[in-house]
Formats: sequence, structure tokens, C-alpha cells
Amino acid sequence: MSAATLNSAPWDARTLAGWREPHLANVESALSRWVGVDAPVLLGDAMRYAVLDGGKRLRPLLVLAASEAVGGNAAAALRAACATELIHAYSLVHDDLPCMDNDVLRRGKPTVHVKFGEADALLAGDALQALAFELLTPEGDEIPAATQALLCRLLARAAGSQGMAGGQAIDLASVGIALDEAQLREMHRLKTGALLQGSVEMGAACGTVSPAALAALRDYGAAIGLAFQVVDDILDVTADSQTLGKTAGKDAAADKPTYVSLLGLDGARAQARQLLADALAALERSGLADTAALRALAHMVVDRDR
Amino acid sequence: MSAATLNSAPWDARTLAGWREPHLANVESALSRWVGVDAPVLLGDAMRYAVLDGGKRLRPLLVLAASEAVGGNAAAALRAACATELIHAYSLVHDDLPCMDNDVLRRGKPTVHVKFGEADALLAGDALQALAFELLTPEGDEIPAATQALLCRLLARAAGSQGMAGGQAIDLASVGIALDEAQLREMHRLKTGALLQGSVEMGAACGTVSPAALAALRDYGAAIGLAFQVVDDILDVTADSQTLGKTAGKDAAADKPTYVSLLGLDGARAQARQLLADALAALERSGLADTAALRALAHMVVDRDR
Repeated sequence: MSAATLNSAPWDARTLAGWREPHLANVESALSRWVGVDAPVLLGDAMRYAVLDGGKRLRPLLVLAASEAVGGNAAAALRAACATELIHAYSLVHDDLPCMDNDVLRRGKPTVHVKFGEADALLAGDALQALAFELLTPEGDEIPAATQALLCRLLARAAGSQGMAGGQAIDLASVGIALDEAQLREMHRLKTGALLQGSVEMGAACGTVSPAALAALRDYGAAIGLAFQVVDDILDVTADSQTLGKTAGKDAAADKPTYVSLLGLDGARAQARQLLADALAALERSGLADTAALRALAHMVVDRDR
Repeated sequence: MSAATLNSAPWDARTLAGWREPHLANVESALSRWVGVDAPVLLGDAMRYAVLDGGKRLRPLLVLAASEAVGGNAAAALRAACATELIHAYSLVHDDLPCMDNDVLRRGKPTVHVKFGEADALLAGDALQALAFELLTPEGDEIPAATQALLCRLLARAAGSQGMAGGQAIDLASVGIALDEAQLREMHRLKTGALLQGSVEMGAACGTVSPAALAALRDYGAAIGLAFQVVDDILDVTADSQTLGKTAGKDAAADKPTYVSLLGLDGARAQARQLLADALAALERSGLADTAALRALAHMVVDRDR
């Protein structure tokens, strides 16, 4: 089903599925071709274990949907999609290490350090981050150098100390501390939101877009980035470990501040609906014709059960 | 002292110093401006602690010397110089962690995880890698997009699973195993050599260079990359911890294969001299006029005492 068809339909899960399946297949196939293939044996195995066969691939889908909305270069978008997933995957590998969350279960499987040992898990995460930037900078002229450079800039900012890694550091420092909603939002804006918003921006960077439309896409990315975390906090309380594929209830157990601890369950759910409305309003404001997939992904973020 | 003056002089340490001092000052000043400044407090402190006020800055000096040899863009070279140092610094932070080498002393100071805790050390390393790519992709037109993209490509390859991280993984897997010289060389070609050679290539990427000259510069980089490790192995045996600024004798203690264990001390020293001769011959072969700084750095690599 084309994005154009999607565009004229009201959103429902089946409509998204028709757009998502072929895009997911492309991403899975590309990741399998690109990740860990020529790496030394154990390192390559750990990299592939961390990335393949699991995950919602939300960030890649956001890249691809945003790129389609701006008529982007498909080869660039596929590479950018995979690069965002590699950054996400490396962050999970490092986040699960004993010195961080010390988690043993991820996507229903033993975490990378449980399976390969801490040292190889550490190195696999490091190598995945480097590979993300390698994917963005292929030789040849299929992807213009200006696009390559812009994609690297956006990804580096989203991943670094003023993005994901910075948010994780604030998260670390905030255990047991009473954050207010503004502080909690700022932490999540960096920790989870920066890479989700960055994925939308990277998709947009694969094509051409007016400053106004880009600003609207950034607002969309910010809203779903925050919505993702609010829903994560809700699921941490309401879902079981088997459905989540990771340990449920661990934030509450770790005495971490969450949207649920701050707003209550109903308050958090209302917040998620409001952020969905904000995201959809931003897409309207963008003036872009072909935003059906982005709309559907916003619904997916809020209505997911894992 | 200009590189042109250097070029006509026989090499000696004072001659190198005249070239090195102002370049080092530029690098230190740039690193201080760019590293960890806008990061969340503890993360930024850990990043700056890991990078500032220490280290020989060999990789930055190689970038700057190679860039000068090809008449490179000075702004690009300074950013590339700092980016290589950030990758080196992050690798040391992660390498010192308890799950890797578990080292407590680096450059004469407590290692990052001893000072800031393991979790912040892990995140600081991750953030330094991202920052390296961010430095290479500034907005504006001072550095052409083609240069930015090429620098990112070279750095990602040098740092990743077919470069530094890959070499570290082979190193991990080789403890207590009898490697022959070819296997040891391959491990070090990746673990240490890739980023040193990559530094030379990144410097060359800041300007224009013929394919033949580039090939010669790559050979130079490969030779000093290997020489660096041979000398490291010699110093691990012959120097004390205070001079080294890190724990001496730890490779032998860990039963790691080294050039000294394989070739003996005299054999390793002969190997280092041969690699220096190879590096200097490659510079001759390059046909580039202005290779004095690169020559001096090759001597520095082999004649250093820490």
C-alpha cells in the first residue's frame, strides 16, 4: 500500500501494517547485510546479536516516513534508518551493563553481556556507534556529500552529550531525587527524545524541505519523542515482562522518577493523548502532502503494548 | 619554526619542538573549547578529565603534519586533529574499565572510572565518540561538505570493527594464546595502527594529493602505527610506571603476547628501527615537498621514553 493511499484513509493498525511491512523488510535486510559481517568473529557475533531479529524499528521507520514526506533520496534514507537503529542498539547494550542498569533480559533474550561477556558487549556497543557513521558515508556518488555530512551532524548531535548520552547521564544522577515535571521532561527530551526527533530530521535531510515544514517536523519529532517515554513509563507499570520482552516494573523498583509516579496513571495517559494530538497538529502545520505514514507512526507510538 | 625550515634540517628533538609547540597549543586550546562544555555537569566533567591536560597528542600532530604536507584546509585539519584525539581518549576510558583492563592509573592520574564511577566513565566514552563526528561536521561553508563526509568515513572506519574496536576484540580473545608474529601484527594493525594511519589519511583528506602520494602516506602511517606498538611493548618492559604515567609491566603480567615476548628486547628494538626506516622511505617516495614534520614525528614515535 502506498503512502498516498494511506494518506486518504483514517488511521488504523491494518493501514499502517501495509506501509510498514515492506519498509521493515528493507531495514532488516540492510542491517543483516551491513552489521558485523567483516568484524572479528566474537565481536561481529555480538554486534549482530545486539541488532538483528528484534525491536520495533521505530527510529528507522521514522526516518523512512519522514524521507518519503519530503521526497528524499531512498538510498540515503535506508542508510540513515539503519544508522539510527545502530545508535539505539548500542545504547541498549551499554545501558544493560552491570555498571548501568544491570539488566539480563532484552527483547525476550539474554542481554549482550550475559551472552558474550561484559568486555565484548562494551566493544560491540562502541563498534556499533562507529558503524552508524560509516553507513552514512559510503563511497561513490549515490548520496551527495552534503547529505552525508548533514546526516552525520544530525546523528552525532542526537547521540552525544547534548542528546542521548547527556540524557542518560542526567538519568543516572537523578535516581532517588525528586524531579518536577519540567526536569523529568528535559531528561527524557535528551535521553529518548533526541534520537527519535533526530530520526525525523535525518529523514527530512534526505530530501528538500522548507524551513517552516522542517520546523513542523521537528515539533512532530519532539512530541512523539516525549510521548514514547510517557508510554514507556505507563507500560513499565501496566505490562508484564513477557509482553515487554524486558524486565517490567524496574523503574519503580529503582526509585526512578517517571511520568506515572509524577502524574498518576490516568494523568500519564492523558499526557500521552495530548502529545499525540500535538504531533498530528504539527503534521497538519507542515503543509507536506504525504504525511500519512508519519501520522500512523505517531498512533503506533501511543497505542503500542510493548 | 616553519615546516620548510625543518625540511632542510637533519632531525633532532629541538627541531621538532619548534614545530610542535604552536601546533600542540592550538590543539589543547581547541579541545578545551569543544569538549564537554555544554554537557550535563558530571558527564561534561568526566569528558574533560578524560581528554584535557595529558597525552602526547600524537594523533592530532599526525593529522596536522599530514595536512601541511598536502596544503590542507587548516580549519578542517584542526577539527580532524581533535576528533582523532577524542576517539583515542574514549578508547582509553573504556579500555581502563574493570571489565576490560581494570586499570587505575593513566597519565599519572586516577582513571576516569576511579574518579567518576563506572557508569559515567562509560557514558563519557560514548559521548566522546559522538563528539568526534560532531566536530567533523560543523555548519557553515568553512569546510566543504565533501571534506566533512570523507573525514567522517575515514574516522568511522579507523575506529570501528575493522579498525580499533576490532583490534581490541582480537586482543581480548588472544590473552594466554600463543600468537605468531603475523597474528600479532594483524591485531596491532587494527588496535593501534588503524587510528594512527587514519590520522595521517585524515590529514591528507584536508587537502589534495595524488593517488601515488596518498599511497605513500598510507604506507608511512602503517609503518609508524606498527612502530608505535613495538615501542609500547618495549617501554612496558623497560620503563617504570612513573615515567610511563600508567602501570608498567602489565602486559607481561597479563600473559599478553607482545613484540618483546616474541622477538626478545633486542629483536623488538631492531624491528622498531626498521619500521622507522620504512616510514622515512615512504615519505621520500611520496614526492611531497614538505614532509619534515612527518619525518620528525616518526622519529618521535620510535625515540620516545613514555
